[in-house]
Amino acid sequence: MGRSSRQISLPFIKIDRRARRPLYEQLYEGIRAAILNGVLRPNDRLPATRLIAEETGVSRNIVVIAFEQLVMEGYVQSRSGSGSFVAAEIPARMEKAVRDKRGSDKKEIPRDPSRRLSGHFVQTLEHVVSPRNTVREESLPFQTGQPAFDVFPFAVWSKLAARVYRYLDFQHLGYEDAAGHYPLREVIADHLRVNRGVQCDADRILIVSGTQQALVLCAQLLLAPGDRYWMDDPGYVNARAVFTLFGGEPCPVPVTSEGMDIDFAIRHYPDARLAFITPSHQNPVGGTLPLAQRLRLLAWARDHRLWLIEDDYDSELRYRGKPIPSLQGLDTHGNVIYIGTFSKVLFPALRVAYMVLPDQEIFQAFKSLKALNDRQTALTDQLILTDFIKEGYFHRHLRKMRGIYNSRLQCLLNELDTHLSDFLSFTDPSAGMHLAAHFRQPVDEARLLQLAADKGLVLPSLREYTFGSYDRPGVLLGYAGFPEEKIRKAVRALAVCFRQIS
Amino acid sequence: MGRSSRQISLPFIKIDRRARRPLYEQLYEGIRAAILNGVLRPNDRLPATRLIAEETGVSRNIVVIAFEQLVMEGYVQSRSGSGSFVAAEIPARMEKAVRDKRGSDKKEIPRDPSRRLSGHFVQTLEHVVSPRNTVREESLPFQTGQPAFDVFPFAVWSKLAARVYRYLDFQHLGYEDAAGHYPLREVIADHLRVNRGVQCDADRILIVSGTQQALVLCAQLLLAPGDRYWMDDPGYVNARAVFTLFGGEPCPVPVTSEGMDIDFAIRHYPDARLAFITPSHQNPVGGTLPLAQRLRLLAWARDHRLWLIEDDYDSELRYRGKPIPSLQGLDTHGNVIYIGTFSKVLFPALRVAYMVLPDQEIFQAFKSLKALNDRQTALTDQLILTDFIKEGYFHRHLRKMRGIYNSRLQCLLNELDTHLSDFLSFTDPSAGMHLAAHFRQPVDEARLLQLAADKGLVLPSLREYTFGSYDRPGVLLGYAGFPEEKIRKAVRALAVCFRQIS
Repeated sequence: MGRSSRQISLPFIKIDRRARRPLYEQLYEGIRAAILNGVLRPNDRLPATRLIAEETGVSRNIVVIAFEQLVMEGYVQSRSGSGSFVAAEIPARMEKAVRDKRGSDKKEIPRDPSRRLSGHFVQTLEHVVSPRNTVREESLPFQTGQPAFDVFPFAVWSKLAARVYRYLDFQHLGYEDAAGHYPLREVIADHLRVNRGVQCDADRILIVSGTQQALVLCAQLLLAPGDRYWMDDPGYVNARAVFTLFGGEPCPVPVTSEGMDIDFAIRHYPDARLAFITPSHQNPVGGTLPLAQRLRLLAWARDHRLWLIEDDYDSELRYRGKPIPSLQGLDTHGNVIYIGTFSKVLFPALRVAYMVLPDQEIFQAFKSLKALNDRQTALTDQLILTDFIKEGYFHRHLRKMRGIYNSRLQCLLNELDTHLSDFLSFTDPSAGMHLAAHFRQPVDEARLLQLAADKGLVLPSLREYTFGSYDRPGVLLGYAGFPEEKIRKAVRALAVCFRQIS
Repeated sequence: MGRSSRQISLPFIKIDRRARRPLYEQLYEGIRAAILNGVLRPNDRLPATRLIAEETGVSRNIVVIAFEQLVMEGYVQSRSGSGSFVAAEIPARMEKAVRDKRGSDKKEIPRDPSRRLSGHFVQTLEHVVSPRNTVREESLPFQTGQPAFDVFPFAVWSKLAARVYRYLDFQHLGYEDAAGHYPLREVIADHLRVNRGVQCDADRILIVSGTQQALVLCAQLLLAPGDRYWMDDPGYVNARAVFTLFGGEPCPVPVTSEGMDIDFAIRHYPDARLAFITPSHQNPVGGTLPLAQRLRLLAWARDHRLWLIEDDYDSELRYRGKPIPSLQGLDTHGNVIYIGTFSKVLFPALRVAYMVLPDQEIFQAFKSLKALNDRQTALTDQLILTDFIKEGYFHRHLRKMRGIYNSRLQCLLNELDTHLSDFLSFTDPSAGMHLAAHFRQPVDEARLLQLAADKGLVLPSLREYTFGSYDRPGVLLGYAGFPEEKIRKAVRALAVCFRQIS
């Protein structure tokens, strides 16, 4: 008998159920690699899909998908009635690609040592911390900025996506208005007027690819190099990174239990041109700016030509009390640029945020710059989102999230009271997706974070949000993304860490 | 009998089948508007869906979808057995939203007249032309940059999208690596090595939100304010806009039938720090840079620390001759930044392009800056695209497009030969999606464009691409997006225009 009778099994295929790559792809890659490196040879008969499914523990459908791919690419031949075989000849082109790949793997073009990046942004880039997108196999407490993916309405979102793709026509494949899909701007305007007290209409709303891009546009249009800007300390790191990148000089403003200390800022930095502020819910320690402070800030802005960037990043997530209307809604002189996002209430990978600009002239300047930055935000996500809001799913989802997050917050507060009140001081934030806790006594923070990490806990330190003096050390405890059972276990594990270091 | 017996029909509902809004939405809006403005009154009985379908000429399913929406939002009540009625009470909140909308429509916050945009980019913004995204109801010949939407594989794309959304899990909802989805970077690396002779691996590929963003990152990292850069004249307007925005000084380089005149550039602007170049297919007039010129350019770049930005925007669309390997593939000193995009070969609304950086240090700097600009490119489109390439659809689509575009190009060339050879000179471009034609004798260009517009023709002028002297006037004739019959009619109509002005 020839080669085709070789009895083979596939012990070399490693399936990792926790890996990010789909199972069919792992299987496909495993078999393909085996063919290319000679473990499987031309004309070898492959085991039946059923057997492979048993051997690797994946469903037979998955095996079939992997096989179809291998057949399509010419690695495997299916001979009717007698099963699947490694192809007698592997496609020459593929072999070449593989050879090239081997040859070029990690190989870099030798670089002229005198060659340096010379752009204007190179020097400043060294001084800013780029946003670190947390990429993890699983979400770990007490990671922040992590919505409750476990209750996200996948089914609805997929259904709307399918409809959008089914009715996609040539108009939606071409370039759109750089300001974004108009119907989306209309539903956002409705939402903001009713729920956030924002003064707006669709014509002044600019769709952007996330809050980060909104901040870039603000920096480009509102900040000249050397301009000073007010920045909460601790405050939103990514905002500071952007404003610094574009040449702004940050002025650290302390944070009280009511948010940014406006009086301090006015006293110390009267010449600032811009203020970055999160009045609904100070980022990261919480606190809501009271009406009197808002009016004082607006009056100062009016009289001193101060731009106010209101980042209303998670204002939809308020669990008690009336939602606080936006700062923008109180503005009578067009000094507020309002930014909102869907990353927090839906999911971060959805790169859709929006800005409300005070008038058409400013809107047009922002729109031109948006076009220069990336022409437009990806369209299909905008179409899906429009339907998601229009058909009522968005508000339903918000209501549901509020209920779930509030329960998770209460659970966290109870557990903290029971297990960590000796070590941490905290107050009920009534809003948002995380809680800020300060250490009651000095701790070896590096050691604490390491101990926590060993127990599978992510403990974002307030140090990372601070750029002036780190005089109120503490940590953030994200709760929104974690079921209550997980929160309970995590708090108890954290309590063990604290006892170990004290 | 009460109000509910009022016999109503819906003559006020206007359905426009050519409008961009879905039919169900038009119907929904029509009925909602009628309720809000009092044409339909509380408790009015609505006609049966079947009757509305007949009256408006849309399918009954569409009517049902519109009704479901109205019921969900509380405008319509469905009473089992007796049909649908206008709600006795319209939801107060909705009414309020509508009132607010009426009140605030177009209203802007009064602006302090002394208030000016003060950012660094405001002055330069006045000197650059922002990309104009052409938004049209239908595509008109001879618009450029318009792929053949009529043969785009919607069904496949939708199927892949549905699968991506079905298997979306929490890992794909969170933040990803700022450099992009790794499996996509892998398939792009394979594609570029095999088809474009690019030296690369996935670790040096950065996914960006369109070529525009790639250019922004280049400007930010490679160009200091005041730096001179080589720019084809005529050349790609959006590249010039970005480099100018970030303070670069453009040096116009004439274009020969073989692309950028490298010798001219070296002679006239030896101190330039950066060159924007489209060597595979000069944008917009065509022409391919010969090997000798490529080597001369690379040697100059190596010896004079010149960055080369290679925009390989439509190199996959070559109809005759061997595809020309990229400039980057010949580079031995890491002076080339390679940019490619899916906008041209798939569709512009897909905001996915990629850069190949020469080494890890430069890659990391670009990645940090990408994160600062918008954290990451929208993920779901990346997932769909990965499958589209991996499963062979991309290459199949490319093959198909090449055949179709070549036929359309031949048709255009034949028609031009027959009808316009007295007026226009042109050569077979052998590649791309449009053809550049120069006027044989001076024409009143403004009048020509107006006459063409009157006949429903879009005639992009070379003037728009020119920034030095406009000494070889002409127009671009996009053909990729138009069936041959449309091309034939358009050429004949254009011939009439030429005869009218000569």
